[in-house]
Amino acid sequence: MTEPFDAVEVIAAKRDGHPLGTPEIRWLIDAFTRGVVADEQMSAWAMAVLLNGMDRREIRDLTLAMIDSGERMSFAGLGKRTVDKHSTGGVGDKITLPLAPLVASFGAAVPQLSGRGLGHTGGTLDKLESIPGWRADLGTAALRAQLADVGAAICAAGADLAPADKRLYALRDTTGTVEAIPLIASSIMSKKIAEGTAALVLDVKFGSGAFLPQRERAEELARTMVELGGDAGVATVALLTDMSVPLGLTAGNAIEVQESVEVLAGGGPADVRELTIALAVEMLALAGVPDADAGAALDDGRAMDSWRRMIRAQGGDPDAPLPRARESHDLLADRDGVLAEQDARAVGVAAWRLGAGRARQGDPVQHAAGVRLHAKPGEPVRAGQPLATLLTDEADRIPRALEALEGAMVVAPPGTTVPPRELIAARIA
Amino acid sequence: MTEPFDAVEVIAAKRDGHPLGTPEIRWLIDAFTRGVVADEQMSAWAMAVLLNGMDRREIRDLTLAMIDSGERMSFAGLGKRTVDKHSTGGVGDKITLPLAPLVASFGAAVPQLSGRGLGHTGGTLDKLESIPGWRADLGTAALRAQLADVGAAICAAGADLAPADKRLYALRDTTGTVEAIPLIASSIMSKKIAEGTAALVLDVKFGSGAFLPQRERAEELARTMVELGGDAGVATVALLTDMSVPLGLTAGNAIEVQESVEVLAGGGPADVRELTIALAVEMLALAGVPDADAGAALDDGRAMDSWRRMIRAQGGDPDAPLPRARESHDLLADRDGVLAEQDARAVGVAAWRLGAGRARQGDPVQHAAGVRLHAKPGEPVRAGQPLATLLTDEADRIPRALEALEGAMVVAPPGTTVPPRELIAARIA
Repeated sequence: MTEPFDAVEVIAAKRDGHPLGTPEIRWLIDAFTRGVVADEQMSAWAMAVLLNGMDRREIRDLTLAMIDSGERMSFAGLGKRTVDKHSTGGVGDKITLPLAPLVASFGAAVPQLSGRGLGHTGGTLDKLESIPGWRADLGTAALRAQLADVGAAICAAGADLAPADKRLYALRDTTGTVEAIPLIASSIMSKKIAEGTAALVLDVKFGSGAFLPQRERAEELARTMVELGGDAGVATVALLTDMSVPLGLTAGNAIEVQESVEVLAGGGPADVRELTIALAVEMLALAGVPDADAGAALDDGRAMDSWRRMIRAQGGDPDAPLPRARESHDLLADRDGVLAEQDARAVGVAAWRLGAGRARQGDPVQHAAGVRLHAKPGEPVRAGQPLATLLTDEADRIPRALEALEGAMVVAPPGTTVPPRELIAARIA
Repeated sequence: MTEPFDAVEVIAAKRDGHPLGTPEIRWLIDAFTRGVVADEQMSAWAMAVLLNGMDRREIRDLTLAMIDSGERMSFAGLGKRTVDKHSTGGVGDKITLPLAPLVASFGAAVPQLSGRGLGHTGGTLDKLESIPGWRADLGTAALRAQLADVGAAICAAGADLAPADKRLYALRDTTGTVEAIPLIASSIMSKKIAEGTAALVLDVKFGSGAFLPQRERAEELARTMVELGGDAGVATVALLTDMSVPLGLTAGNAIEVQESVEVLAGGGPADVRELTIALAVEMLALAGVPDADAGAALDDGRAMDSWRRMIRAQGGDPDAPLPRARESHDLLADRDGVLAEQDARAVGVAAWRLGAGRARQGDPVQHAAGVRLHAKPGEPVRAGQPLATLLTDEADRIPRALEALEGAMVVAPPGTTVPPRELIAARIA
C-alpha cells in the first residue's frame, strides 16, 4: 500500500509551527494504528504538538480520527437521556461514586466508563473493586441492560473504544508528552464521544493535586474540551475546581468508598457533598431535568437506593464489610493551632506509596491502603492529635509515605485565619 | 541496576526549557546506548532539544558523552601532524577527493573518516567506490600504516566510533529531528574528536543545496562546532560556503571522481579549485605549514602523485576507466541568453533520482549515474545547447529527474548581468 503522506514531513510541519491538514491528521492516527508510523515518530510528533500547539480545527480532527480508530457505541433507543461526567483526576476524588447513582435516581442514564489509577491520583475502578464481589467488566449488552434498569453503571472502557488513544496515551506516559492540552483534550473527548453519551459534564481540576496545577492551563483545557464536545454534538459543560487540598478526608480505595457511602446517606464531608450536588445539577440540567434538588435525593435515601442497586448489578455486596488495613500510623500535630495547609499532591503521593495506587499499568493495588485525614484547612488542631492516619498492609511502606508528607501539613499559630478556598472556581459552557 | 535519573524527568526538563546537568546528559546517552532509554523517549527528547535548544556547556557534555559511548582513536606517535576536514554536505561536493591528497603532499596526515550519502547530497565513499578495486574499509592498523606512508586516507568510520551517535542519527532521520543545531554539532564533532585528529577544518554550507539553507543558521552551526572543537582541544576553523549552486559541473559518483582528477591535474572548474585550495591552506596552517602554496602542488603534480598512492593503497586502480552510464539525456536551453540560476537542491534531487544516491541506508547506488552541467551561472548559453546531461543505467528514472529540474535552470535574456556569488562567505575561528 502506498501511503499518501510521509511521517517525517508531517512531524516536520508541526515542528515548524504549521497547522496540519485534516487528511494529514486522519492519516497519521490511522497509520499509527496500523503500525506504519512508529512509536518513536509518534512521540517526536507529540513533543512538537506539546511545544507548538494545535488549533481548534486540528484538535477536532485529531479527536475524530481517534474515535474512528475503534468502535462507536450508541445508547439511542434506551428511552432515557444519557449524561456522563469526567474528572481530570485529583486526590480523594471519589465524586463519581455518589454522583452516578444520584443522577440515575432522577431517571437519567449515566454510562460511566472509567479507568484505573496511575501515579498519585486514584482510579475509580480501583476504589470500587474494594467492594467484595464487584466487577468492573461489563459487556456492551450488560451495560445497556443495567442502564435501562438501574440507570447508572461504572465500568471499564472496552479495548475497542478509541484504541489509537490507548496506544498514544501509553506512549505519552513514558515520553514526557502527557501535559499537552490538545492531546489531553482529544484523549478524553474521543473516549467520551465514542462512548455515545448525549451530554457531558467535565470536572477540570487545578492546584497541586491536579495534573495541570496552573489554573490558566486547566481553564484552557476546559474550554478546549467544551468546544470539542459542542463541535461533536455532545452538550458539554465544565466546572473548574480547586484541587490544591484533597477532596474530603480520605485518599485511597476502600476508605473512599466508605466516605462516598456517607455522602449517599446524606452526610460526609461538606466539600464532597457540595461538588457531588453541583455536578449532579449540571448533569441533570443537560439531561432535561432542570433545577433538580439533588441534595434532597442524598438526604432522603433515593440516591442510596440507586447506589445499592448499581453495586448489586455488578456483583457487589453493598452491605459487606470493606477491607481494613493491617498497619496504621498516626501523624501527630506537634503544637496547638490551626491547620493552614494540607497539600493535595503530597497526600496523593503518600497514599500511592502506601499501596493505594500503582507505579506501572497492570500492577495490583492494596484496597485498604490510603490516608485518612482528621481536619480540613481552617480547622483547629491540638498538639498530639492526629493530623492524618496512614493505612497499609505493609509496614515498610510507611517511612516513604511520611517523607512525602513532610511539610505538607502546616499548623499555624492559634487564632490564625485561613482564607476559605472556593471549591468551584468557574463554570465554562 | 538502579538508574540515577528518570528518562521522563530528563525529557520534561528539556521540554520545559531547563538546561540539563552534566550527569543527566551523560546518563541519558549511556542509558540510550544500554537500551534503558527507549527510542521513543530519545526521539521526544530530540524534538524538545530541536525546539528549546541547548547551551554551550550542554552541547559539550553531549559531545563528550557520545565520544565515551565508544572507542577513541589516537594518532599520537605517528610523527606527522594530523588534520581533518568535514563538510556538512552539498551537491557536487567532491572537495575531499582532491583535498586529502593535496594536504598530505605537504607532509601532514589526513585521516579522513567519511560516510555514505543519504538523500540528495552525495557521499564521499560512494564516489570513491566507482574506482575499480577501491575499498572503503580499513582497519585501524592499516589506516595508521597508510597515514605514515601516504599521508592521506579516506575510509569508512568504524562502528566503534561514537556508536550512540550512530543510533541517535538513524533515529533523528525518521523523526523529523535532523535539523537541531546542538544535535548536528555534537554528532559531527563527537566523531571527529573520537577519531583523534589534532586539528579540524569545517566546510559549513548554506543555500538551497545545504541541509541548513539559511545562512544565519549555518553560521550558528559553524560557531557552535568551532567552540566545541576548541573546548575539546582540537584546533578548529570553519569556512562558511555558498551551496545555492552545485560545486563544479558534476553531481554524481564516477563523474565527480573524474572532475576531482581534473583538479588534481591543475585544471577543473574554478570553484572546485578555489575551495580545495582555501581549505588546504586552512588545514596546512593548523598542521604547522603556514602560507602553503597549495595551487602550485595542484599544478606541478605533487597532489596527483599523492592521490595515486592513496587510491592504490586502498586497492584502487587510478588508471582504470571509470564506469559509464548506459543511458543519457540532454536537457536543452530553449533560447539564447545567460544562465541566471542553477538550483543546487534541484540538481541534487535529480542526481539522486537518477540513481546516484540512496533513499534508505544500505541501498546500492549507481556509480555512473548523475548530472553533468554544461555552464555555470553567468555564462552565456544558446538555444538548443545542452544545459545538463542526465546519466543513469535505467532510462525509466529520467522523467522524475527531469521533474526535479523543472524551473531549476533559468536562462535570462542575452546581456543580463548575473551578480557573481561569493563562494567563501566567511571564516570562523
